[in-house]
Amino acid sequence: MNRPADIRYLFEPRSVAVLGASADRSKIGYRLVENIVRGGYAGKLYPVNPKGGELLGQKVWRSLDEVADEIDMAVIAVPAKGTYQAVEQCARHGVKHVPIITSGFSEMGNAEEEHRIVRLAREHGMRVLGPNIFGVFSAKSSLNATFGPPGIQHGSVAIVTQSGALGIAMIGKTAVENIGLSAIVSVGNKADIDESDLLTYLMADEQTRIVLMYIEGVQHGERLVATLKQAAIKKPVVVVKSGRSKRGAIAAASHTGSLAGSDEVFDAIMRQCGVMRGESLEEAFNWCKFLAAAPTPRGENTVIVTNGGGIGVLATDASEKYGVKLYDDARLLKETFGSVTPDFGSTKNPVDLTGQAGPQQYDAALAAALASEHIDATLALYCETAIFDAQNLAGMIRSNADAYRKGGKPIVFSTLGGEMTESCIGVLRKESVPVFGEVYQAVSCLGALYRQRRHIAEYSDAVDEADIDIGLVEKAVASARAAGRTFMLPRESRELMRAIGVAMPQNAVAHNLDEAVKAAETIGYPVVMKIVSPEIIHKSDAGGVALDLENKEEVIDAYQAINVNARRYKPDARIEGVEVSQMLVRTTETIVGARQDKAFGPTVMFGLGGIYVEVMKDVAFRAAPLSRKEAQLMVKEIRSYPLLLGVRGEKRKDIEAVVDTILKLATLVRRCRAVSDIELNPLVVYDHGQGVKALDVRVLLSSSLSSND
Amino acid sequence: MNRPADIRYLFEPRSVAVLGASADRSKIGYRLVENIVRGGYAGKLYPVNPKGGELLGQKVWRSLDEVADEIDMAVIAVPAKGTYQAVEQCARHGVKHVPIITSGFSEMGNAEEEHRIVRLAREHGMRVLGPNIFGVFSAKSSLNATFGPPGIQHGSVAIVTQSGALGIAMIGKTAVENIGLSAIVSVGNKADIDESDLLTYLMADEQTRIVLMYIEGVQHGERLVATLKQAAIKKPVVVVKSGRSKRGAIAAASHTGSLAGSDEVFDAIMRQCGVMRGESLEEAFNWCKFLAAAPTPRGENTVIVTNGGGIGVLATDASEKYGVKLYDDARLLKETFGSVTPDFGSTKNPVDLTGQAGPQQYDAALAAALASEHIDATLALYCETAIFDAQNLAGMIRSNADAYRKGGKPIVFSTLGGEMTESCIGVLRKESVPVFGEVYQAVSCLGALYRQRRHIAEYSDAVDEADIDIGLVEKAVASARAAGRTFMLPRESRELMRAIGVAMPQNAVAHNLDEAVKAAETIGYPVVMKIVSPEIIHKSDAGGVALDLENKEEVIDAYQAINVNARRYKPDARIEGVEVSQMLVRTTETIVGARQDKAFGPTVMFGLGGIYVEVMKDVAFRAAPLSRKEAQLMVKEIRSYPLLLGVRGEKRKDIEAVVDTILKLATLVRRCRAVSDIELNPLVVYDHGQGVKALDVRVLLSSSLSSND
Repeated sequence: MNRPADIRYLFEPRSVAVLGASADRSKIGYRLVENIVRGGYAGKLYPVNPKGGELLGQKVWRSLDEVADEIDMAVIAVPAKGTYQAVEQCARHGVKHVPIITSGFSEMGNAEEEHRIVRLAREHGMRVLGPNIFGVFSAKSSLNATFGPPGIQHGSVAIVTQSGALGIAMIGKTAVENIGLSAIVSVGNKADIDESDLLTYLMADEQTRIVLMYIEGVQHGERLVATLKQAAIKKPVVVVKSGRSKRGAIAAASHTGSLAGSDEVFDAIMRQCGVMRGESLEEAFNWCKFLAAAPTPRGENTVIVTNGGGIGVLATDASEKYGVKLYDDARLLKETFGSVTPDFGSTKNPVDLTGQAGPQQYDAALAAALASEHIDATLALYCETAIFDAQNLAGMIRSNADAYRKGGKPIVFSTLGGEMTESCIGVLRKESVPVFGEVYQAVSCLGALYRQRRHIAEYSDAVDEADIDIGLVEKAVASARAAGRTFMLPRESRELMRAIGVAMPQNAVAHNLDEAVKAAETIGYPVVMKIVSPEIIHKSDAGGVALDLENKEEVIDAYQAINVNARRYKPDARIEGVEVSQMLVRTTETIVGARQDKAFGPTVMFGLGGIYVEVMKDVAFRAAPLSRKEAQLMVKEIRSYPLLLGVRGEKRKDIEAVVDTILKLATLVRRCRAVSDIELNPLVVYDHGQGVKALDVRVLLSSSLSSND
Repeated sequence: MNRPADIRYLFEPRSVAVLGASADRSKIGYRLVENIVRGGYAGKLYPVNPKGGELLGQKVWRSLDEVADEIDMAVIAVPAKGTYQAVEQCARHGVKHVPIITSGFSEMGNAEEEHRIVRLAREHGMRVLGPNIFGVFSAKSSLNATFGPPGIQHGSVAIVTQSGALGIAMIGKTAVENIGLSAIVSVGNKADIDESDLLTYLMADEQTRIVLMYIEGVQHGERLVATLKQAAIKKPVVVVKSGRSKRGAIAAASHTGSLAGSDEVFDAIMRQCGVMRGESLEEAFNWCKFLAAAPTPRGENTVIVTNGGGIGVLATDASEKYGVKLYDDARLLKETFGSVTPDFGSTKNPVDLTGQAGPQQYDAALAAALASEHIDATLALYCETAIFDAQNLAGMIRSNADAYRKGGKPIVFSTLGGEMTESCIGVLRKESVPVFGEVYQAVSCLGALYRQRRHIAEYSDAVDEADIDIGLVEKAVASARAAGRTFMLPRESRELMRAIGVAMPQNAVAHNLDEAVKAAETIGYPVVMKIVSPEIIHKSDAGGVALDLENKEEVIDAYQAINVNARRYKPDARIEGVEVSQMLVRTTETIVGARQDKAFGPTVMFGLGGIYVEVMKDVAFRAAPLSRKEAQLMVKEIRSYPLLLGVRGEKRKDIEAVVDTILKLATLVRRCRAVSDIELNPLVVYDHGQGVKALDVRVLLSSSLSSND
């Protein structure tokens, strides 16, 4: 299922058939043929319809069986009930790729027919796109095999969209914004070809400079993560994912039938992959348009040039929000801008040319910034004034944008004013000059450029697998499975911890009072005692836990109390004994967990003590496998991270041991898929160099048999 | 200084003089006269310039002294060095209001001259606007006394801006967006007239439906809070405040010379006042335009109507973000939309008309929503399709917007598509139809409408002052002051707590070992002991604290150790004794504080235990005075609030006692301005009904003398 796809002929077909071609102009089958013909496709086109005839100057074939030529791609636009037969026709003919426009399958609850079609296609080595899509556009082949609008502008942005309606509207929007496309593909129900397949092609496609994806739900997330990681260091990848909110997730599920999964996990994993997630389509389009054309800055020193102090302050706020670093060497700023700034202005960043500035002052200041080896990018702001006539605005912006492009330095403009200023924005945006009517949008684009640069600089494809004893892991799993359980008993969890090398407090299981006392004396006071019973999972609720037992007498009392309580709580519970363990000083408590995420497969999570995770939702996620560096970033990401560094005179905690533990769990859930959920809670973290200890371990197993890969 | 201003003639002057009127078209003094004349001002205009002559058909007077008529407003546009004399001229003539356009005063470090001018004006009963402003526009008088663009569109939005350059650009932007203005005023250096004065006028002005303010720094914040509270229940108040970020705050300070203050405090207090803060100017403009025209919804049941599932999901996400409640009675939705939705669509909210929908389907669905008594507002989405030709889009939107306006129900539209769709947005926005090109913007406007509605419904002007013994408070303050201290010793803080009725642990100060033992026995073990010395503030650092002393022997040891440590730490410290106090069970710890904020005066803060405030920044602020309800909302606002409700089987904490304590501190810092800063840290909160106890109290006093109001 997960083999790398060769879907080249989806974008570069030498011949295309349209099954369901129609002379009825209101039909999709007409629109498709029309778009292909008018779009200037240079390969061979075979419209197919049992009625035969002619359509837009093309012969209509009664069946694919009549066609002698090899067919790379057959677009299917017949009704749902005829789709299987159409695919059979393609199979007979040896077609390579089958985009199925037709809807009425899994998105309507009819998953069985969809599976049947995909099975058939695969048996004949065909790849299916869709069903339930608007088609494919590829600039490379001048192929508009969609029923969307004609005249798609060619360019360097590739769009992959799960929603067809949104995709068609996006084609229109990109035309308005003068965003040229290298490709646009709708994936629909993703019965076969998915985002990963398309990304694999697009990241190698030299015409595509940036990829924009609209996602509603993730399937085969593990492969998606691996592909995104590879893609995002080759070219910027921007994602808009709907279903952020709980209600939105439900709406998305009912829309495409795919599970949205947890938005926090999605968000974290996109960051891990270096993928930029836009909140709105507008933000994503802005980024794409800017990133497709902007030169890569050498560094991050940014300077703001403005004719208004107020707008300069707003831009400064926006710079902090979007991680844009403002250059602040006062001496060098003065040196660079002193001669081009009036005395009552400011050479501090924002450089304030004041309301007296005209085009000449802007030209001089922007040229100075361009020439400076200390400045890597410029943000130019303009507030409409009587001094600087907006009629001269477009010229000033155009010439400076041009100079920066030639000089290989990024620049963005943001202007505020009346009709003239607005129409200047409109004209320049059509020319793909990066001009915005809102400071936050301008700075957001610059921020995206820096993020992309930073990601590439920091990226490493290292994977730090931990050294775990997989044999011992499987033994522990087998023990639980043999007893028909989907959870582990304490001794099995303990064995699992031994297998992956995570320390736990010393302990022993006592089967009578004597053994309990002996165990306590061996371990050393104080000790903790807990009931051991496969039927009692919530031990505290059952009165089955006693803490801080300081001597023999307390152990005796507690042993009896625990047994009585447990029996009262669940009279028929099998009681296997009482666990006696070392009572630890509980200093800094963390939670480290791992699970088989429904969308992304093996994932890890980390957070501080119970309250921080439960109440403050202060938790970080990553997809496995991950590198040590990624695990370190994950630990640093939580808001409560300063507690691990030591606050109020406390020592730094053993952060490296936490990172080790994360890597161990990541390796565990990667290599042993039977472990569906594991949580060390709490994982007590000692001072730097002193390690960590898991006080409690909860392990859940998948109900199916172990399927180690 | 804080008397309510009568600034009516700033907006409704019967006569206006312009000092510094000029025939030189490049001068502000020309532009001002031109704007007043061309703007159609109906009152009397007196251009003044020592050269005399004629200007734009108006006689130019050599001096105000020549004018016999009464002058309500004199706009000053002479150079900085001539400004004082110009104001003298106004004073002689009995002018009422003096907007000073001229810059070069406190914003350039020349505060002395500015003070001198304001003093002079006040001595003659004149109010000053500015200096350093672009002027005043008032629709009521058709008076454009600004040097901004001509032809300002009349309407119902009033703008108050601290930045002149931004203000001028905003005039242009409002014209583009077809936002009509009732007034626009630049406040500049706010040497006299400030936002509160203007708000007081604007909230009573029947032409103004909404107020938009751009603020960089707050002065006289206490009065501003009181005024904003009054204003925001009369009409929506929208604020954009720059200087959110640290760097932005510095930039703002250097721009207008005003202190930005803490952005968190500003943000919290705006929410308290019911003021809506826009992040960007675009957001603020969108809200203003929408709120100025939208009918007030009766309830909050919102329905989304769409022709695309994807865009519907995005709108659902946005609804959660902006607090828009989606109606979800499936039965009623089906009843309402069943007949107008195709079978393969959805009557769930979002109501999906599918890509097959044309204008008729929209008309039917929007009419059904308008007619339904269960639906209070509609969000209509459109993705460009081949079925629904964008040429018919404007007509559909216009007629439905009209029907909703007549029906008194709010509706917003969001569309996505190509050139035709975009130009439709442009045309309709000019007609002030609420159409957006981005779903998040559309939903944000609806969210703002609901927030305003909710604020008015929940508002109460109640102020819950606590019953505190102000005599005892002043005694404690006097005691510290008499010793020349700006902080309180433990016994003074304890007295203060008694005065306001906040419980502390039992305690006594022992002057020798015998007394210490006796105190411990009286209080009951365990006890805590702390050194008492005016020279030792950080007692723990000095080894001057011993916790959990369980018997006489431990008290004896600790007494000696504490004294030795303290003497070693600071050999010349006066040691007044050792405080012995009850050792409390420290369960849930909170921090309650109050201070004289530089911008807003008396304010209170609340958060959970040290780490939550220090590391997690989980803290709430409010301006005093406040009502019990406001204090309750403040407590509920923190992320860690669930801890007070009791997690993991714990009991609910005594939240009411926390609220009481907040009100007590609010009253204290309001009534005793000498207390500049007070913090109860920790304030231990017991189970519901068990009260609170302050374990430690830190009190700082202002260095000036007590100035109770």
